[in-house]
Amino acid sequence: MTLDVAVLGYRFMGKAHSNALARLPMFFPDAPDVHRHTLIGRDEEALADAADELGFEHTATDWESVVDEVDAFYNLGPNHVHSEPSIAALEADTPVFCEKPLAPTLDEAEEMRAAAADSEAIAGCAFNYRFVPAIRYAKGLIDDGELGEIRHVRGSYMQDWLTDADAPWSWRNDEEMAGSGALGDLGAHTIDLARFLVGDAAGDFERVSGNLQTFVDERPVEGGEGTRPVTVDDAYSAQATFENGAMGTFEASRVADGHKNDHTIRIHGTEGSLKFSLERLNELEYKAADHRGYETILVTDGDDPYLDHWWPPGHVLGWEHTFVHENYEFLSAVRDGESFAPSFEDGYAVQRILDAVERSDDGGEWVSL
Amino acid sequence: MTLDVAVLGYRFMGKAHSNALARLPMFFPDAPDVHRHTLIGRDEEALADAADELGFEHTATDWESVVDEVDAFYNLGPNHVHSEPSIAALEADTPVFCEKPLAPTLDEAEEMRAAAADSEAIAGCAFNYRFVPAIRYAKGLIDDGELGEIRHVRGSYMQDWLTDADAPWSWRNDEEMAGSGALGDLGAHTIDLARFLVGDAAGDFERVSGNLQTFVDERPVEGGEGTRPVTVDDAYSAQATFENGAMGTFEASRVADGHKNDHTIRIHGTEGSLKFSLERLNELEYKAADHRGYETILVTDGDDPYLDHWWPPGHVLGWEHTFVHENYEFLSAVRDGESFAPSFEDGYAVQRILDAVERSDDGGEWVSL
Amino acid sequence: MTLDVAVLGYRFMGKAHSNALARLPMFFPDAPDVHRHTLIGRDEEALADAADELGFEHTATDWESVVDEVDAFYNLGPNHVHSEPSIAALEADTPVFCEKPLAPTLDEAEEMRAAAADSEAIAGCAFNYRFVPAIRYAKGLIDDGELGEIRHVRGSYMQDWLTDADAPWSWRNDEEMAGSGALGDLGAHTIDLARFLVGDAAGDFERVSGNLQTFVDERPVEGGEGTRPVTVDDAYSAQATFENGAMGTFEASRVADGHKNDHTIRIHGTEGSLKFSLERLNELEYKAADHRGYETILVTDGDDPYLDHWWPPGHVLGWEHTFVHENYEFLSAVRDGESFAPSFEDGYAVQRILDAVERSDDGGEWVSL
Amino acid sequence: MTLDVAVLGYRFMGKAHSNALARLPMFFPDAPDVHRHTLIGRDEEALADAADELGFEHTATDWESVVDEVDAFYNLGPNHVHSEPSIAALEADTPVFCEKPLAPTLDEAEEMRAAAADSEAIAGCAFNYRFVPAIRYAKGLIDDGELGEIRHVRGSYMQDWLTDADAPWSWRNDEEMAGSGALGDLGAHTIDLARFLVGDAAGDFERVSGNLQTFVDERPVEGGEGTRPVTVDDAYSAQATFENGAMGTFEASRVADGHKNDHTIRIHGTEGSLKFSLERLNELEYKAADHRGYETILVTDGDDPYLDHWWPPGHVLGWEHTFVHENYEFLSAVRDGESFAPSFEDGYAVQRILDAVERSDDGGEWVSL
Repeated sequence: MTLDVAVLGYRFMGKAHSNALARLPMFFPDAPDVHRHTLIGRDEEALADAADELGFEHTATDWESVVDEVDAFYNLGPNHVHSEPSIAALEADTPVFCEKPLAPTLDEAEEMRAAAADSEAIAGCAFNYRFVPAIRYAKGLIDDGELGEIRHVRGSYMQDWLTDADAPWSWRNDEEMAGSGALGDLGAHTIDLARFLVGDAAGDFERVSGNLQTFVDERPVEGGEGTRPVTVDDAYSAQATFENGAMGTFEASRVADGHKNDHTIRIHGTEGSLKFSLERLNELEYKAADHRGYETILVTDGDDPYLDHWWPPGHVLGWEHTFVHENYEFLSAVRDGESFAPSFEDGYAVQRILDAVERSDDGGEWVSL
Repeated sequence: MTLDVAVLGYRFMGKAHSNALARLPMFFPDAPDVHRHTLIGRDEEALADAADELGFEHTATDWESVVDEVDAFYNLGPNHVHSEPSIAALEADTPVFCEKPLAPTLDEAEEMRAAAADSEAIAGCAFNYRFVPAIRYAKGLIDDGELGEIRHVRGSYMQDWLTDADAPWSWRNDEEMAGSGALGDLGAHTIDLARFLVGDAAGDFERVSGNLQTFVDERPVEGGEGTRPVTVDDAYSAQATFENGAMGTFEASRVADGHKNDHTIRIHGTEGSLKFSLERLNELEYKAADHRGYETILVTDGDDPYLDHWWPPGHVLGWEHTFVHENYEFLSAVRDGESFAPSFEDGYAVQRILDAVERSDDGGEWVSL
Repeated sequence: MTLDVAVLGYRFMGKAHSNALARLPMFFPDAPDVHRHTLIGRDEEALADAADELGFEHTATDWESVVDEVDAFYNLGPNHVHSEPSIAALEADTPVFCEKPLAPTLDEAEEMRAAAADSEAIAGCAFNYRFVPAIRYAKGLIDDGELGEIRHVRGSYMQDWLTDADAPWSWRNDEEMAGSGALGDLGAHTIDLARFLVGDAAGDFERVSGNLQTFVDERPVEGGEGTRPVTVDDAYSAQATFENGAMGTFEASRVADGHKNDHTIRIHGTEGSLKFSLERLNELEYKAADHRGYETILVTDGDDPYLDHWWPPGHVLGWEHTFVHENYEFLSAVRDGESFAPSFEDGYAVQRILDAVERSDDGGEWVSL
Repeated sequence: MTLDVAVLGYRFMGKAHSNALARLPMFFPDAPDVHRHTLIGRDEEALADAADELGFEHTATDWESVVDEVDAFYNLGPNHVHSEPSIAALEADTPVFCEKPLAPTLDEAEEMRAAAADSEAIAGCAFNYRFVPAIRYAKGLIDDGELGEIRHVRGSYMQDWLTDADAPWSWRNDEEMAGSGALGDLGAHTIDLARFLVGDAAGDFERVSGNLQTFVDERPVEGGEGTRPVTVDDAYSAQATFENGAMGTFEASRVADGHKNDHTIRIHGTEGSLKFSLERLNELEYKAADHRGYETILVTDGDDPYLDHWWPPGHVLGWEHTFVHENYEFLSAVRDGESFAPSFEDGYAVQRILDAVERSDDGGEWVSL
């Protein structure tokens, strides 16, 4: 059986997923066969070029005609086009794989989650960092109780591409299109990882307190004249408590000079601690119960998560491999009629937390979840 | 001129300062001569032993008789004995050097600050980490504008000595005696460093949001039977905004497994960034405007702060050297009739912020300063 | 024009290069089109499976019939089968890309180099680490004179897969098949990088002194009974001097417990220094003339070598990307009739140095080159 | 009983030891009481100032009159004045503590060792790095067999104070006065640490191969005119084999730009590995048998070597503390009539190896020990 896949969006995420699809046969021979069927976009010329580059047979400018004719629909467009096509696909019982964050607003995310609940098809939210081998390995340690009771969860996601006040405006600076800024774009990843890693051990987020800040109010139009207003946050911070009493601190910034894609997670339990940093994604720092300090583990051994599919120990993987892993899992679930996580339910749960952070920032007080 | 110094307290801090006094002549020959005159405590036998070990000529069990007979009074006792003797000394116009945090409550801190304002003597609050060479060097970079406009200030202080629920009770677990827990003990250091480093560049703390948590409610009595209640926090986190709009995040924990004395400060500006970690106190990570990443600077060159007094480049200093530096500065100020920072005013300012964090935690909302 | 490529060898290197060929169209659209034409091996069944997995149209068990019928011949077999097929291909003026080390003996390497010199086709030796972006970036700094006059070159390549005396025997433990052990397998990479990086600035290797050691004399036959003798080195070290007086130290080990693929290069000049470590291959440590310490550069910006073909800054690459880069360069050179480095001449030059290290070990004295 | 100590030399080492003596009473109360009796030097004025600064009661310009009148004689002068006064003291049965390297030539070292053997007094060679807590801890791990059989010993000592060709000439650049350059000054430390750490486990150095290099042949006279010739090495490298077959590689440089006092030791055994770096002297990297990678141990706990004398965990020590530890051990041995290591025998053993490295460099072949 070959799965026909349609993909909406052909820029950064479009390429990341297309590459993943292209690499499955050689490295995950037990993955379903995939036909890159239709690439969907608005600009016909750019779309044709992209289809050629990314290996798609067809192109389409209206997703309506596509979503019920393929075996899986990938929604990789900007946040404000997540909801309508994804819901249409789910109503047609076409499995959907949607980029994060699920939607620009909680309302839309809620509708998407409802559509997923009503559909017979699975609906995945593409939080790719769950599929970093070191993160999977960390999850295993926590699930095995190696960290004991969780007490602290810290997550930070620092980038610097907006440090310069003259960095140009893009849709990511616009509330209508993006929903929020660093919070939605980066914070969504961090909150999802926190839920993934300690959700079972520490329980749900119970309440949050947030702080959003926009340092640069308007930015120049790229290649044009004048400026456009920045209506989203450049940075956020948040505090949280978990059901079991654990404390969380979270932050992200697009103006953290010197940091390119620095997503860091730290977890402390009564028996041990963990540190992970995305810019060194092959490594996990692990303080075990009988250790005095952190052990630097290179998570590239043959029995590490997904590593039997790749290279010998020490031959490190890159960022893009996370997409291969998540596509392998998603497509296998589609073929086998099994469930897939992170789901729209997970995407919605993250969104609820982000929304609470934003409401807390508005109201100046903690918000319960 | 030789300064007669009396010291209240002969445990951890007593030893750290006594050692500093003892080392001044060899390394800071231009420091005032100091006579370790009187050591003050309650237990006469232990006190006599300590005076012998720490090099004091006299001992006393009542500070009242001492504070107006010496040239400087060091208050190194537990937090709840900071206020009364310090105020008495200041009323006698005896210079006071008091350990941090200034007092267990804001009210007491306020009284101490008032006493300092009314006294002709100087009143120093012994935030020793201001005197780490790498911190001084960092301050110089910020003051010179090398970081541009400050946008993020992050501070974290992690220890793990209370990770184990069976770690014994001490005065540091008691609200009456300590005021607060991780917040007052560790957070005071972090908040002071933040004020020191970016106070000029980013302005005052404007508002804070706090979260305090006690994970272990009672702890066994050391060498005794039964338990005593823990009435302070094991950990805190806080968010802050500064006058110039910069965002702050702060936290401390005594239950961060694997961390002994891990005090970390990170600052991001529009032109550069800094990282400092106390467990590697000879190093500063500096991302300059024309750098792509952080440069690891070993702050041990002859023209680095205080380093002309010590060893050749690369011959690293330890934690205790910070006490030598602060004693050098304090005693020189006493001799020369000059002002000294951090002062009681600084200690009070820190306390106000800590108090606001605590009130924010109580009330569940931001507190303005 | 589409280039028909034949590949001899379908294990580790076969997969690494096949993957690279498969990825070129999406990421290097200006690379020549490649047809994975024929996969060559001995075991027909395994070969058929591999051809299917790696995307080859045909298979062959005799390379003789293939080498003059394709546009490029990749020799990725064990070292002892490098020479004959590569020479045959070159005699047919078929471009050859041969894995390193060029040959198990200097004599064979010499014959291969002569064949390359006599052929109209280009002959590349696949030292993939020259194509790490951070290494290219380092090369640029050295060529620009940023390090001044080179004084020290240090290279170390540590693995630990033979630490355990019960690790099974393989062809890599056999002198006939492999030529040498850690020296040829790992040292070849290090020596090539040293030549690449400082060859222009410091000149040729002038003389070497070597030390080889075999710690485990025999190893168990995998899945069989008994043991087979280890006739190659488990580790080597070497000292070298360069034409300009610079000092070199080199070492490699397969028994360095805790190190998986730890290839490290350090270079010191009169104006600056560099450090690179393969397990963190996206990073370069650079001490510039006006720096006090090393700056950690994440070499993932759009204007870094090859990075315009991949992802945004901070989205790190993996080990396998080096193969994509070298295949891009090699195939472009084949298409354009241009020269390619590293060539067989380079492979031979490395081999001469390795041979000198081995003779120095035998004779107990320095060997001039 | 109070020990009268005489010290020859009042510069860098004079201060390091005087400081150590001054600190013993407060931190090592069970150490012998010490009277800083006489400071010996040539320049009366400078000597008087130094005696005042370093706390000595008397001064002397001729050591002959002093060495038999004190309880211990410290020889901290330049290398060329090590032998005569030390031998005279030993002949008077006065315990001697002599700085490293023991002597500028092997002949002198041999005479000193003979004098020590003939004397009733103990003779210590002040290799202070044996007294770093992390090194002691490492030694314990090796002695306990935690690393298994030793296979690799690597030592590197990098400084950069002579990188600049205009850095001024000093006695350390002169063969007559210093014996050798980086080899004797820095290599002596490394070789001693190697002997200390693995001497029991791997046996003696069996043979060495060396390479010495002088990059800058003459240097300007400080504060004067013209230049003086550099007659010692700026850098050395060496290979070694140990009795048990382990391989050693060693190097040092005074022209390694960006390195201030970077003394690094790495040891690999069949069961585990260790890394130590002097610029982070409170840390030890330890790869235990059941670890996957290195654990970063902060060697500051109360039960770590010497740490019960200092501060709570995480309150790091500095370089100078090694002198306190070695003086504690040496003086206790003097008082108790016990033996002390490192001894003149150890100093001589190091010198024999350094001499062999130099002869190997001269002869271009391995030298057996």
